[in-house]
Amino acid sequence: MIVMDLGGTHLRGAVVNAKGHFGRSIKKIVGVNRSQKAIISFIGEVYKNLSDGENMALSLGIPGIVSAKTGIVFSSPHFPQWKNFKMRSELQKKLKVPVALDNDANLIALGEHKKGAARDWPTFLMVTLGTGIGGAIVIDSKIFHGTLGFAGEFGHICINPKGPICSCGGRGCLELYASASGLKRLVRTSLQGGKTPPLLKSIPRSQLGETLFILAQKKNRGVQKILDQFGFDLGIGLATLVNVTGIQKIVIGGGLLSLSPFYWKAMRQSFKAHIYRKVGQETLFRKGKLGDEAGLVGAALI
Amino acid sequence: MIVMDLGGTHLRGAVVNAKGHFGRSIKKIVGVNRSQKAIISFIGEVYKNLSDGENMALSLGIPGIVSAKTGIVFSSPHFPQWKNFKMRSELQKKLKVPVALDNDANLIALGEHKKGAARDWPTFLMVTLGTGIGGAIVIDSKIFHGTLGFAGEFGHICINPKGPICSCGGRGCLELYASASGLKRLVRTSLQGGKTPPLLKSIPRSQLGETLFILAQKKNRGVQKILDQFGFDLGIGLATLVNVTGIQKIVIGGGLLSLSPFYWKAMRQSFKAHIYRKVGQETLFRKGKLGDEAGLVGAALI
Repeated sequence: MIVMDLGGTHLRGAVVNAKGHFGRSIKKIVGVNRSQKAIISFIGEVYKNLSDGENMALSLGIPGIVSAKTGIVFSSPHFPQWKNFKMRSELQKKLKVPVALDNDANLIALGEHKKGAARDWPTFLMVTLGTGIGGAIVIDSKIFHGTLGFAGEFGHICINPKGPICSCGGRGCLELYASASGLKRLVRTSLQGGKTPPLLKSIPRSQLGETLFILAQKKNRGVQKILDQFGFDLGIGLATLVNVTGIQKIVIGGGLLSLSPFYWKAMRQSFKAHIYRKVGQETLFRKGKLGDEAGLVGAALI
Repeated sequence: MIVMDLGGTHLRGAVVNAKGHFGRSIKKIVGVNRSQKAIISFIGEVYKNLSDGENMALSLGIPGIVSAKTGIVFSSPHFPQWKNFKMRSELQKKLKVPVALDNDANLIALGEHKKGAARDWPTFLMVTLGTGIGGAIVIDSKIFHGTLGFAGEFGHICINPKGPICSCGGRGCLELYASASGLKRLVRTSLQGGKTPPLLKSIPRSQLGETLFILAQKKNRGVQKILDQFGFDLGIGLATLVNVTGIQKIVIGGGLLSLSPFYWKAMRQSFKAHIYRKVGQETLFRKGKLGDEAGLVGAALI
């Protein structure tokens, strides 16, 4: 089969054989034309390239509000033009092979369960920290999709009813604090206060994480303060997740995992301060092990 | 079998026959001695009274952090002396019959599913609004207990990290706003502002709900403002529940359901304002149908 993971900047793909072993893989930049039609063509090209004329089923992860059951993508933060996009049927029409799809964080969770950090956890929560926050609930080794198919929108937990407006329509959502967008906002505010290296002002968004990492390693106090705040806000959200679901096992993944040495302590302290004590007491946190591969491993499992 | 529902003020109990029909029932005031030992004696007496010499299994609902699996009550807001109370084994020792127990909101949810508002919903959330907030997650007609047994602590969703300190150890928990304790706090603050009938000052806690109901019916603006705030805060919490779990079906129950005509609209508006749109769009809210009976009906099912 062919597996793919569609992100905001790159599409990753690979061939997986019947035994589940990975073969040839590919990573392609997603072009500027991100319309529904353009993305179908783009996926079609990558498919052709990988499948090399063979008829292989396709399984892919999509960022956004997706129904795995109907194959419809209702919206995606990275592809604002998409509205009720019948992605599965369009791809099946084009490729003439069976297509399966699901939310990207769901597939990352399946991947971490199969081969990564959650191999011994049949039931756990997955939180991915990237441009936004992705989430997944795994119960008895299966993704829990909820009643309509959209479980796991952990980024839209309101942690401050007087906070800034979020793209979801809400206010003070966790994603505005504990994601790359949140970090950018924290850096901007901090720069205005004059407490942060002005160097950060001119850094493009794609290099923000890396730059913060270097500055934090150099023990820059302004940057550490930003990451403490990040950890604090993340801890509030994680406490809510455990209070609500009673699932005391959490895997953290996504691009911002690399910064975790600098927010992990604040995150755990804040978690402890915001959880109903007995409920949270034995909560285990693990770091995702598969990185960018997790989504592809998960895609091979649906 | 004998079923019981232990609350902060009353213990309700009933006999249920093999066909699930309810027989004789009883409602007793819980005395001032609420130690672990005293409560075992008290339950024993009620059991004796109901069972009339027959050997019948006992099933009961308990407020607080309870493990249905081990039968241990870790803590209860109504019974602060209880710590890691091996309630099931103590009761079994005393009564010499099999005993089952679970968190009270879990049993209310099972009751509403069997005979009440959620008969056609295999998967739904139960929220009970009383002195505190109780919660339950029902998936495929079964209580979801989480990994340690404590799923559904919806009252401890943090909605304001700068809010007042909660008995759970956290800060700004939903329960401080959208429960009877929350209402009391709102009334107190509002009285200080001089916007609320001073009459409310001298009302004992047990009559607060009823008094607010009468004043709201008389279109008292100060009281309506309090209930609007209550609905607003409740709506934030409900939006978090649906964003996290992807379960778009909610039953609201508990003692404060009687006030719902005066907060329902604000609750739904706030829910809409705080939910990730597509995720929440088709959310259905229902009012619990069984009232105080729900917990007993649920107890007959475990």
